[in-house]
Amino acid sequence: MTDITADTAGWSCPAPLRDHPVVVMGHGGGGALSAELTRHLFLPAYGGEALEGLTDSAAVTLGGARLAFSTDSYVVRPLFFPGGSIGDLAVNGTVNDLAMSGAVPAYLSCAFILEEGTELSTVGRVAQALGAAARAADVTVVTGDTKVVDSGHGDGVYVNTAGIGLIPEGVDIRPRRARPGDAVIVSGPIGQHGIAVLSVREGLTFGTELVSDTAPLAGLVRAMLAVTPDIHVLRDPTRGGLAAALNEIATASGTGVALDEAAVPVPDAVATACALLGLDPMYMANEGRLVAFVPRPQAEMVLEAMRAHPLGHEAAVIGVCVAEHPGMVVARTGLGGTRIVDPPLGEQLPRIC
Amino acid sequence: MTDITADTAGWSCPAPLRDHPVVVMGHGGGGALSAELTRHLFLPAYGGEALEGLTDSAAVTLGGARLAFSTDSYVVRPLFFPGGSIGDLAVNGTVNDLAMSGAVPAYLSCAFILEEGTELSTVGRVAQALGAAARAADVTVVTGDTKVVDSGHGDGVYVNTAGIGLIPEGVDIRPRRARPGDAVIVSGPIGQHGIAVLSVREGLTFGTELVSDTAPLAGLVRAMLAVTPDIHVLRDPTRGGLAAALNEIATASGTGVALDEAAVPVPDAVATACALLGLDPMYMANEGRLVAFVPRPQAEMVLEAMRAHPLGHEAAVIGVCVAEHPGMVVARTGLGGTRIVDPPLGEQLPRIC
Repeated sequence: MTDITADTAGWSCPAPLRDHPVVVMGHGGGGALSAELTRHLFLPAYGGEALEGLTDSAAVTLGGARLAFSTDSYVVRPLFFPGGSIGDLAVNGTVNDLAMSGAVPAYLSCAFILEEGTELSTVGRVAQALGAAARAADVTVVTGDTKVVDSGHGDGVYVNTAGIGLIPEGVDIRPRRARPGDAVIVSGPIGQHGIAVLSVREGLTFGTELVSDTAPLAGLVRAMLAVTPDIHVLRDPTRGGLAAALNEIATASGTGVALDEAAVPVPDAVATACALLGLDPMYMANEGRLVAFVPRPQAEMVLEAMRAHPLGHEAAVIGVCVAEHPGMVVARTGLGGTRIVDPPLGEQLPRIC
Repeated sequence: MTDITADTAGWSCPAPLRDHPVVVMGHGGGGALSAELTRHLFLPAYGGEALEGLTDSAAVTLGGARLAFSTDSYVVRPLFFPGGSIGDLAVNGTVNDLAMSGAVPAYLSCAFILEEGTELSTVGRVAQALGAAARAADVTVVTGDTKVVDSGHGDGVYVNTAGIGLIPEGVDIRPRRARPGDAVIVSGPIGQHGIAVLSVREGLTFGTELVSDTAPLAGLVRAMLAVTPDIHVLRDPTRGGLAAALNEIATASGTGVALDEAAVPVPDAVATACALLGLDPMYMANEGRLVAFVPRPQAEMVLEAMRAHPLGHEAAVIGVCVAEHPGMVVARTGLGGTRIVDPPLGEQLPRIC
C-alpha cells in the first residue's frame, strides 16, 4: 500500500475538546461547543486575522473594493416547514450574514449535496424556493456545484451557499464595536423559526399558527444605515437565539449587556410552546430578526426607521450595553430580580437551519 | 397542522430528467447527467446570465473590481488517500476553479458538515491539511461554518469551500472562446488522482506507487499569462477527466477538438491500472492538471513557460481545435484510426472529489 503517513500524521486533541473526543450534535449548535471547535481546532489549523474576528462574515479588500464574504451550510430537518424551506434559509441566512456587516449582498454561490434516491421533485421544489428567495433578496446565484452521496450518507438535500457583498464607505459594523451606553434593539418578536420547525418535526400544534420568520434583512439594514452610518453592531440571532448572539457580542467587545426581559417581544404562541416544552425563547433560533447596538443619541431615530420597515415594525429597545459585568448578559426579570443569561452549550433543537 | 402548501407546491419533472425521477450517483459525476440537472432543474429555478456560462467560476464585477467567484463541495471517500486528503482537495479544487478564469485566488470560505460520532482527531487532521494547502496556494481562509448531522446522515466529514479572486485586466478566459486553430495543451500526465483514490478505496496495488496529482494551479496559470494574456480557455479536468473537459469546451464554443491520442501523457501505472480494470484514462479525474486552448502563434511560448514551471514540466500539445465536427471530440488513435471521445454520462468512480 502506498505510504500515506504524511496525511495521517497525528493530531492531538487540545484540552478543552477532550471532554468530547468525537463530534456531538452540539458542535454544530452555534454555542459554546461550536466556539470551542473553532478556537481550538479550526483556528490553529488555518486561522488568520479575519477568521479570528468570529463574525458572521469576513470583511476583505480585493481590487480596491471592500467586500463582505460569508458562508453557511444548511442541514435543516425537515426540508419544508411552516413559512419556508431549506431553500429560503440557504438564501436568507447567507444574505443576513452579509447584511450584519452593513454590506449590500450581491452574489451567491450554491452547492448541493444530494442523497442518492432523493426524489428529483424534492430537489426541484428546493431549487424553486431558493430561486424565489434570491429574487426577493435581490441577489443573483452566479455559480454552483452538485455532489451526490450514497443512500444512507446524507438526508435528502444539504445546501451550502456563500455570498459576497459590498460594504459601503464609512460603515464599520462588528461585534467588537459594542460600547457601554449603546442601546440594544431587536427588530421583532423572537422564537418563531425554532418553534415552527419544532412543530412540524414533532407533529405538535400550539393553538395559533406559527410560521418561520425567515426573511432577508438587507433592506432593513439599508433603512437603518440611511439614518446613521454609526451603527456599532448587528447580529442575526440564529442558532442559540438571542442568548447566543448577545453573549458573543459581550465577549467580543469586553462589555456587558443589561437586558430588560419584559421588553423582549415574544409571541404568545412561542411563549406557550416554550412553557409546554420546557424551552427558553431566549435560546430559540430566528432567521429573520436582527439585534443592533446603536449609540444612544441615534437610537430613537434608528428605532423609528426600523418600525417604518415591514420587517421591523415591532422593533423594540430591549436593553443597554454596560461597562459592568464584562462578557456577561444579565437580564432584569419580570419579577424584579436578575438572572444571568448564559451562553448556550449547543442548540436546543439540532439541525434547526 | 399549519398550512405549508406554498412550499410544497408541485414541481414537474422536465422531459430529459424523467428517465431518473430520483437522484442517482451519476447526477454528481460532472458528466451528461450533471449537466441535465443543471440545465433542466437548477437553471430554470434560479439561473442567470453568469450561471448559464457553465464555467468553473463566475466572473462578476463588484465595487469596480472584476472578481472570479466559485464553490465546490467535497465528499471524497476515503478522506485520506495517497498524496492528499479531502482538505487538500477542498483548497486546490476551488483555487483551480478560480485560476481557470485567469484569476488570482485570494480568499476562501470553508464550511464543514460533520457526522455525529466522527473522531475529532479526524476532523483535526483534515483541518490541518486544509490549512497547509491554503498556505501553499497563497490563499487565506477568512470565514467558515460548522454543521453537525446525526450519525447515519453523513460520512465523517464533508467540506465546502467557496473562493474569490481578482481577474487581471485584459484577461478573458472561458470555454466559449475556443477558436479553430488553437493548440490544445495539457499540463501533465493524466489519471493519477482517480487511480490513487481507487487504489486505497479498493485495496489495490499496481506495482508502482501512484499518488494523487492534487495541486494548486494558480502559479502555473500566472506563468502562462506572463507570456501572453491571450489564452482562450483553461479548464481543470476533474470529474469526468479530460474527456468531460474537452467535450464541454467543444460544446460551449461550437468548435471541434481533434486529439492526438498518442500525445496524451498517461503514466505507465495509470495505463496498467486502467487496462486491468477496464477503465479509460481519458475519463479519470485529475486534481492538479489543466488543459489550455492557446492561439497557435503563442502556443510554443506558452508551452515553454509551462515546462519551466514545476507543475507543468511534462506539458504537451495533445491536439488542435477545429471547425469540423463542432461540439465533438475526435481522437486519432495509436493504430491510425479515429474514435469519438464521448462525454461521460456520470463519473467512473463516484465520490472522487
